[in-house]
Amino acid sequence: MPDYAQFSQQQLEEELARLNEEYAAFKARDLKLNMARGKPSSEQLELSRPVLDVLNSQSDLSSDDGTDCRNYGVLEGLAETRTFMGAMMDEHPSNVFIYGASSLKMMYDTFAQYYMFGVLGKTPWCKLDEMKWLCPVPGYDRHFAITEAFGVQMINVPLLEGGPDMDMVEDLVAKDASIKGIWCVPKYSNPSGTSYSDETVRRLAKMHCAAPDFRIFWDNAYAVHHLYDDPARQDQVLDIRSACEEAGYPNRYMKFASLSKITFPGASISAFGCSFANMQEAKKRLGVQTIGFDKLNQLRHVRYLRDMDGLAAHMSKHAAIIRPKFELVLDALRENLVGTGCTWTEPRGGYFVCFSGPEGTAKRTVSLAKEAGVVLTGAGAPFPYGNDPEDSVIRLAPTLPPLDELRVAMEVFVCCAKIACVERLLA
Amino acid sequence: MPDYAQFSQQQLEEELARLNEEYAAFKARDLKLNMARGKPSSEQLELSRPVLDVLNSQSDLSSDDGTDCRNYGVLEGLAETRTFMGAMMDEHPSNVFIYGASSLKMMYDTFAQYYMFGVLGKTPWCKLDEMKWLCPVPGYDRHFAITEAFGVQMINVPLLEGGPDMDMVEDLVAKDASIKGIWCVPKYSNPSGTSYSDETVRRLAKMHCAAPDFRIFWDNAYAVHHLYDDPARQDQVLDIRSACEEAGYPNRYMKFASLSKITFPGASISAFGCSFANMQEAKKRLGVQTIGFDKLNQLRHVRYLRDMDGLAAHMSKHAAIIRPKFELVLDALRENLVGTGCTWTEPRGGYFVCFSGPEGTAKRTVSLAKEAGVVLTGAGAPFPYGNDPEDSVIRLAPTLPPLDELRVAMEVFVCCAKIACVERLLA
Repeated sequence: MPDYAQFSQQQLEEELARLNEEYAAFKARDLKLNMARGKPSSEQLELSRPVLDVLNSQSDLSSDDGTDCRNYGVLEGLAETRTFMGAMMDEHPSNVFIYGASSLKMMYDTFAQYYMFGVLGKTPWCKLDEMKWLCPVPGYDRHFAITEAFGVQMINVPLLEGGPDMDMVEDLVAKDASIKGIWCVPKYSNPSGTSYSDETVRRLAKMHCAAPDFRIFWDNAYAVHHLYDDPARQDQVLDIRSACEEAGYPNRYMKFASLSKITFPGASISAFGCSFANMQEAKKRLGVQTIGFDKLNQLRHVRYLRDMDGLAAHMSKHAAIIRPKFELVLDALRENLVGTGCTWTEPRGGYFVCFSGPEGTAKRTVSLAKEAGVVLTGAGAPFPYGNDPEDSVIRLAPTLPPLDELRVAMEVFVCCAKIACVERLLA
Repeated sequence: MPDYAQFSQQQLEEELARLNEEYAAFKARDLKLNMARGKPSSEQLELSRPVLDVLNSQSDLSSDDGTDCRNYGVLEGLAETRTFMGAMMDEHPSNVFIYGASSLKMMYDTFAQYYMFGVLGKTPWCKLDEMKWLCPVPGYDRHFAITEAFGVQMINVPLLEGGPDMDMVEDLVAKDASIKGIWCVPKYSNPSGTSYSDETVRRLAKMHCAAPDFRIFWDNAYAVHHLYDDPARQDQVLDIRSACEEAGYPNRYMKFASLSKITFPGASISAFGCSFANMQEAKKRLGVQTIGFDKLNQLRHVRYLRDMDGLAAHMSKHAAIIRPKFELVLDALRENLVGTGCTWTEPRGGYFVCFSGPEGTAKRTVSLAKEAGVVLTGAGAPFPYGNDPEDSVIRLAPTLPPLDELRVAMEVFVCCAKIACVERLLA
C-alpha cells in the first residue's frame, strides 16, 4: 500500500502523472454513470411488483372493521395499517397516524404545523424572533433544505460513532431556548450509516432543554434496512419513545417512517408515531387539512407485507441485491485508498457509504468524477447550506447502478480521489 | 297545496297535530338513515373497480417518456397525467401540477404556503396584523374550516343565482387590502348547485383589488359532474384563466380539481392549475417538501380514464346512478313543501340540493330529523363559523343512500320541515 504522507515530492509527482494517465483513459470511455442518490435499483423495484396484484377489481375492498376503503373517511388510517406500522415503529397502533406517500412531506408538514400554530400551546415558531435547529453532520440534505426554507438557523453537530456529539448537544440545548429541535436518522444514518448508541438515545431523551417545545424529529428511514440477515450483524437502536417516557418527557419526540425503500419510493405510505398529547394535537390539525389519506394504498401494503415476519422476508430480498454493491464499494475503497489519508464508514445497513478525503479534496474529487462521466452527490450536500467546512465528505450511494456499472464508477472514483489527495499534498 | 301563510291559528294547530302524529310514526320505525355528506354511493364506487386492474405485476410501469413510475422523481407529475388534468381543467399541461390524493389538503397547503411565505414576493400572510377572506354563502364547510384554522376573518357574501353578489365583492376588495382572497366553487356549487355566470367570472377577473396578492381559490370540484348527458342541460362556466389573462391579472387565480368523485374519494389524484409565475413559485416550494407524489396512481388513473371522452363516458355512468336520487329529492320537495314558505335549488349537477326554510327553522328541522333517525348536515354548516344568521339553510346530500332509503329519509325530512314551519308560525 502506498502511504502518500511518506511520499517525496518526486514520488508524488510521478504518482500524479500515473493517475492522470489512468484518468484520461476513463475520460476517453465516455462514461455515463450515476452514484448520486439513494434510489433503489430496478432489480429491487421488481421485488415489489406483486404489491400491484393485491387489489384488483375482484378484491374485497373493505378493511378488517368493514370500512369501505374506496370512500372518504378514517383520518388516521386503517386499523390494520396502524397496527403494522406500529409494530415497525415500536408504537401502539393508537399512537400511529398513516400519512401520504411521501415521508419528506410528512416531516415538512409537521414542522410547518409547529411553525404556524406552535407545539402544545407554546408560541408558534413563526412568531419567534430567532429560531435554531441542531443538525448532526454529515446528514440528509433534504432535512436541511426544510429547516433552511423556514429561515431557521442551523447548527452543525458532529455525528460521531454512536450518534451526535452529545456533550455539545446537551450544552447547546440547556442554555439556548431558541433551539427548537434536532434532525435525527437514528439507524444506518444518511449518509454515514452510523446508528445511535443506547447512551445517545437516553441522553437525547433526558437532557435538559431550555425550550419546553424542543422536538426530536426522529426519521427512522432505515429501520429495517439491514444488509445482513444475521441479527448479530444488524444494528439495533433503543426506542426513543420508551426513553422519553422514562425520562419524563413523553412528548419530546416525533417518529417518522415510510415504506418507500421497502416497496415503491414515493408511491407507498408513510406514518408518524408520537405521544398521546402530540397525537391529539396532530389529529385536530390534520382534520382541517384532509378527510383522510389513500386507504386503498394502505390496504394494498398491509395485505402484501402482512406483519413483521413478512416485512423481514421482503427486506432480506432487498439485502441480497444491495449487499454485493456495498461490498464492492467497500472493497474498492480498501484495496485502493488505504494510505492515502482517506477514510470511510462501513455500514451494516441503509443506503450510503460516507467517504472522507483529506481536508479540501471533496469538491475536487466530485468535479473530476463528473468530468469523467460519474455523477456523485454534490460535495457539501450532507451539510446545512451545502457547506462542508472541511470540504472533505462525499456521500456514496451504491444501490441504484447495476453491479458492473458500479464497479467502473468506483474505479473512476478511487482514481479521482487519489488525484485530489496527491494534488493537495503537492499544493 | 296548502298555503301556510293563509292558515288560521286553528288550521295551523290541526296541521301540527297531524304532522306530529306522522312524525311519531316515523320515530316508531327506529330508522337509521344518513343524508349528511356528499359521498358517492357504493353503486358509484363499483363503477371504478376496473381502475384497480389497470396496473398489475405484469404491467409496463413506465410513463410515456420512459420514467419508471415505481421510483423517486418527477415533482410536478407525469406528462400524460398533466395533459389529462390540463384538458379537464382548461390549462396547458405545463400549468398543471399533480398533487396527492386529497384536494382539500392541496388547498390547505396552498393557503399555508401563502401564509408562511407570501404570494410572489409579498408579505407572508402570517406577518399581517389583520387578514380577511370572502366566503360566498352558503358554501363548503371544509373550506371555511381552513380559513378559520388560520384565524382569518371570514366575510359572508351572498351566493346569488349566477354566483357571489359581485357588487358587494367589488366594493369590499376595492377598499380593503386585508382581504386576501375568496373561496369559489364555480360549477354546481356546494351546496347550492349554482354555477357562476360569464359575467361573474369576468367581474372576478377584472375587479380592482386593493390587495395585490388577492387570490381566487377556484375549487372546481364538480367540473364534470353533470346530472344529464344532454349538453343543453349541462352548466358551462367561463374559464377563469382566460378571463384573468384578458383582464391583465394572470396570477390572480389558483384552480383546484381532483378525481375523488370520479374514481375513489381520497384515493385518487388531485391537481392545481395556475399561471407560469404561480407555478414557478409553487414548484420551488414543493421541491423542498417532497420528491414527488404517487406516480403509480397517476399512471393508473390516466390509463383508465384516457381522455376527455373516456372521462365523459365514465361520468355519464355516475349520472345515471345519482340522477334518480336528485329527482326523488326534488319531487319530494315539490310535492310536499310548495306553499310552506320553503324554497330549494334545482341543480343540474354536483352533489347537493340546497334547502331554505323560513327564518329560524333550520336547526329545529335538523334536530327533529335526527331524533327520528335521519342524519342531515348540521344546520349552519354551510356558513363560516357554523353560523347561519337566518337559521334557514339545510344542505341535502342525496348521493350516498340507496334510493329506497332516500325515499324514506325524504318523507321524514318533509315532515320535519313542515313541523318546524308550522311551529314557527304558531310561535
